[in-house]
Amino acid sequence: MIYIGILNLYLYLYLYESVSVCLNTSEASKNRINRVIPMKSGSLPPPTPTPTPTDPMATPLLTDLYQFTMAYSYWKAGKHLHHSVFDLYFRKNPFRGEYTVFAGLEECIRFIANFKLNEDEIAFLRSAMPTCQDGFFHYLSQIDCSDVEVYAIPEGSIVFPKVPLMRIEGPVAVIQLLETPFLSLVNYASLVTTNAARHRLVAGQSKTLLEFGLRRAQGPDGGISASRYCYMGGFDATSNVAAGRLFGIPIRGTHSHAFVSSFMGLDEIVGKTLQSLDGSSQCNDFVSLVESWLEKIQGLKSSIGLYGETNKSELAAFTSYALAFPNNFLALVDTYDVMRSGVPNFCAVALALSDLGYRASGIRLDSGDLAYLSIQSRKFFVAVEREFGVVGFEKMTITASNDLNEETIDALNKQGHEVDAFGIGTYLVTCYAQPALGCVFKLVEINGQPRIKLSEDVTKVSIPCKKRCYRLYGKEGYPLLDIMTGENEPAPKVGERILCRHPFNESKRAYVVPQHVEELLKCYWAGNSSKEREELPPIKSIRSRCIEQLDHMRPDHMRRLNPTPYKVSVSAKLYDFIHFLWLSEAPVGELQ
Amino acid sequence: MIYIGILNLYLYLYLYESVSVCLNTSEASKNRINRVIPMKSGSLPPPTPTPTPTDPMATPLLTDLYQFTMAYSYWKAGKHLHHSVFDLYFRKNPFRGEYTVFAGLEECIRFIANFKLNEDEIAFLRSAMPTCQDGFFHYLSQIDCSDVEVYAIPEGSIVFPKVPLMRIEGPVAVIQLLETPFLSLVNYASLVTTNAARHRLVAGQSKTLLEFGLRRAQGPDGGISASRYCYMGGFDATSNVAAGRLFGIPIRGTHSHAFVSSFMGLDEIVGKTLQSLDGSSQCNDFVSLVESWLEKIQGLKSSIGLYGETNKSELAAFTSYALAFPNNFLALVDTYDVMRSGVPNFCAVALALSDLGYRASGIRLDSGDLAYLSIQSRKFFVAVEREFGVVGFEKMTITASNDLNEETIDALNKQGHEVDAFGIGTYLVTCYAQPALGCVFKLVEINGQPRIKLSEDVTKVSIPCKKRCYRLYGKEGYPLLDIMTGENEPAPKVGERILCRHPFNESKRAYVVPQHVEELLKCYWAGNSSKEREELPPIKSIRSRCIEQLDHMRPDHMRRLNPTPYKVSVSAKLYDFIHFLWLSEAPVGELQ
Repeated sequence: MIYIGILNLYLYLYLYESVSVCLNTSEASKNRINRVIPMKSGSLPPPTPTPTPTDPMATPLLTDLYQFTMAYSYWKAGKHLHHSVFDLYFRKNPFRGEYTVFAGLEECIRFIANFKLNEDEIAFLRSAMPTCQDGFFHYLSQIDCSDVEVYAIPEGSIVFPKVPLMRIEGPVAVIQLLETPFLSLVNYASLVTTNAARHRLVAGQSKTLLEFGLRRAQGPDGGISASRYCYMGGFDATSNVAAGRLFGIPIRGTHSHAFVSSFMGLDEIVGKTLQSLDGSSQCNDFVSLVESWLEKIQGLKSSIGLYGETNKSELAAFTSYALAFPNNFLALVDTYDVMRSGVPNFCAVALALSDLGYRASGIRLDSGDLAYLSIQSRKFFVAVEREFGVVGFEKMTITASNDLNEETIDALNKQGHEVDAFGIGTYLVTCYAQPALGCVFKLVEINGQPRIKLSEDVTKVSIPCKKRCYRLYGKEGYPLLDIMTGENEPAPKVGERILCRHPFNESKRAYVVPQHVEELLKCYWAGNSSKEREELPPIKSIRSRCIEQLDHMRPDHMRRLNPTPYKVSVSAKLYDFIHFLWLSEAPVGELQ
Repeated sequence: MIYIGILNLYLYLYLYESVSVCLNTSEASKNRINRVIPMKSGSLPPPTPTPTPTDPMATPLLTDLYQFTMAYSYWKAGKHLHHSVFDLYFRKNPFRGEYTVFAGLEECIRFIANFKLNEDEIAFLRSAMPTCQDGFFHYLSQIDCSDVEVYAIPEGSIVFPKVPLMRIEGPVAVIQLLETPFLSLVNYASLVTTNAARHRLVAGQSKTLLEFGLRRAQGPDGGISASRYCYMGGFDATSNVAAGRLFGIPIRGTHSHAFVSSFMGLDEIVGKTLQSLDGSSQCNDFVSLVESWLEKIQGLKSSIGLYGETNKSELAAFTSYALAFPNNFLALVDTYDVMRSGVPNFCAVALALSDLGYRASGIRLDSGDLAYLSIQSRKFFVAVEREFGVVGFEKMTITASNDLNEETIDALNKQGHEVDAFGIGTYLVTCYAQPALGCVFKLVEINGQPRIKLSEDVTKVSIPCKKRCYRLYGKEGYPLLDIMTGENEPAPKVGERILCRHPFNESKRAYVVPQHVEELLKCYWAGNSSKEREELPPIKSIRSRCIEQLDHMRPDHMRRLNPTPYKVSVSAKLYDFIHFLWLSEAPVGELQ
């Protein structure tokens, strides 16, 4: 018991010292004011209400039952208003990589801004927890997030294990109710954004990346979130119309195999007229024009080989599609046979369009050997350009879209290919290579007392204390490492040497002289307090932040195979405190 | 051209013959009437409207853009009303297994029952497709699913590759718009139901299975769908409150590590009184009662070893939770140390409750070696029962919940363990072992003309024609195989030998004499027609169907390693027709 007494004294000293340091950092925080929007100042108009969550299913009941049973226990113990601090973080980067992109913040803020249990929800909880006292349900009906504060790393930032993505503070019973929805809104969002960023890195900046995953996503919201966050992670467009509408993401799409096979032959096409692009003339029989071009192509005896009969239902479908979308003719060419039918049929229609001043968009390959078929198709286009003198025909866009993922794109790059755009679905949106990110939500302080969660597995031990987090940059402009400190420790300073320690490995330490220091956690929700809070930026800004940050990482952290881990550290003082608290909480065994 | 002419004659004969057979099967279909609810009969009250989709995000815009561009092309070609037949099916069972559970049907029916594009949606489409003519948007504003018919295998059935889970018929432009939402509603639903069923098979019927995956699911709907479909696949309960409310699924939950570490010590507990279960007496200091039991446990010198100081914050949390839920005390015991702290603390509280007539529920283990810790915990409970004479104490429920999946449960079974209930999250709900099911939606007939989609990969060739599907049962009561026939072929008959052919492998054939014949596809949506349609059963009935069907499969199809494939076949006539159509559509190469 004496030992425990000494520990408590130490704890007291630690906390006391923290308070004395507090004055220093409050000055530093003023520097952030020019980057934030004051939301609650007296002379300003009242802030616009934050919209509700995009998914109407994100209600206060979208949580685990134990959040409510705990809330009741807190309430019963008179503890529900105790001021708690929780960290939301993950322990391991996904996809065998060494980086993650943080996403989902805006949805969390929308969630808490509108957090309120309605009567029906309370009635359901009453039926689910029949032994709980009435006063508790009355309490539940009163709560909102006006006493909650949320600090977070900006959405679209590159983030690393153990560093809190979000710090959530407020009455413990309320904060617990937020745990599951926050994790549900951040885990998949960050995972799929990271996956999209990885696909962008492997495909390269020059390629167009299209997200085609809605049909294979994990439920409607999985599909809509995927489209949103893939765009955030660097994709160019989606096939998902609802996501396009909700988030202003460019949408793309042409036709499917069913469209092609729904035609039997050219005689089905009734309206055969097509105006030229400039409106100066009209072709009265576009079908015959297409047929005449097909004959010319079949007559070609060049490097592209001999072409016999092509599939007539396919030709009819292409012709029909071109009549509907002469400005945007892109054909799916693998319904019957890419090189024997799809490509020559496409070229016939594209050449007919060209006669009327239209420029076809290109083809989509959805099966077979994409490297080979893209190269053969390109050769065909080159030959057509040469034979018929149609300038630019060889530049036709080739889109590929059959079960693509990081590995297959990497393999295509190594083999050589002529693909300009990748349409990626299943592997992207379900995060097939690792379909879950393990974000957790851990209590780090209650009523000013730092708390720790131990585990047999050291990677699962939580880092206690309300913390500040910084990213330190080196001479070359790259981030060197992230460091966490106690809330009231002085901030690392540019040009000043600081000791950075691995949080759990005693011998891993480094001195760092930062050239630039970035504080990571910013206030995004201040409740009823008068603190300034950051604005929620539009998706295009988040996307730009993500692309820019990815671009500014040291390349060895970003490579696909055996990347170098980015260092995450704690201050010397926080290191000591973690280990002090660990020993004070872990029971000492007794051996005989 | 002569060759093509002969093929057309053959096609004509095929179709003609089908018509003549039609009369036979219409009789057979009458037998189903007693199992269906007539929805549109003159004397009956009007049917209740089908509710909207559970996820409000499942709107007509939840689709790929190409569905709308195709709709426009069909409309432009005057083809949009052509009567089309599409099959929804998958090509390969998930999880290296040989079976799949079909789910998501009810949501599809809800979707089409409420399918209607509103003005805002039309306006968005107009902006996204600016070159399309006004008449098209007018057409879009008029469409609903009154001309659509949906035939499906009942939800919760065991299903196999290539056999249509659903056959969707109606105007081609409308049916195309349904493709993506249907796939989005069926793919994940069937995948996660199958995953749940697999977890049930490996855990065994005697264990309690709890779904704890909301926080790791792919978005809010991913979480809600997971809870629903895991219950359907045989789970007992979920932690997800919203799913409990929406679907009437039992919900479960107690407390987390944060709750445990939020307490500092017993002096925090203010209200210490607890009434006995029968109300006859009151304990005024439950905390002291707990402490006295802990001392007795620490004094035990039995086979369970020596116990020193336990963690006091944990003891306070357990005591507090027991005061809130004396009838349902279940403690998470691994926050600090399972055997040195969690289990003795739990027993102290459980014994104190027992003094007042309450029976504690048990413990939850969330880290470490679950086999070892469950066995040690059980030994502890046995010793407590023996030492203190508390009858039934050894039967305390042990729940395990740390990153469990099929493999870890199988490994636990092999090692031996004392776990009674498994709480399964991440691996279950994200279907980690295979996070996507590849259901597709293929055109098989248009305006009475069978259609085929070819591919370099033979497994991707579609099976043409509007079909009927049957499951044939053998003498032992097990299903023998599924067979697809042309729509108008006579149904297989009990006791009559029928030739069943592999659809693509010429040499794989078998004669079958079925003991029972089950027609698989039933009408679930009849549009405005007067056809009877099946009722949508409640989730509990679907769950029972699933459990019963799993139970009635031949065990070698169901085993985890190297299961025997279940046979899927076509009639001799359909076989011939598939290959005839294939040859007629595939272009013939020209070699020099």
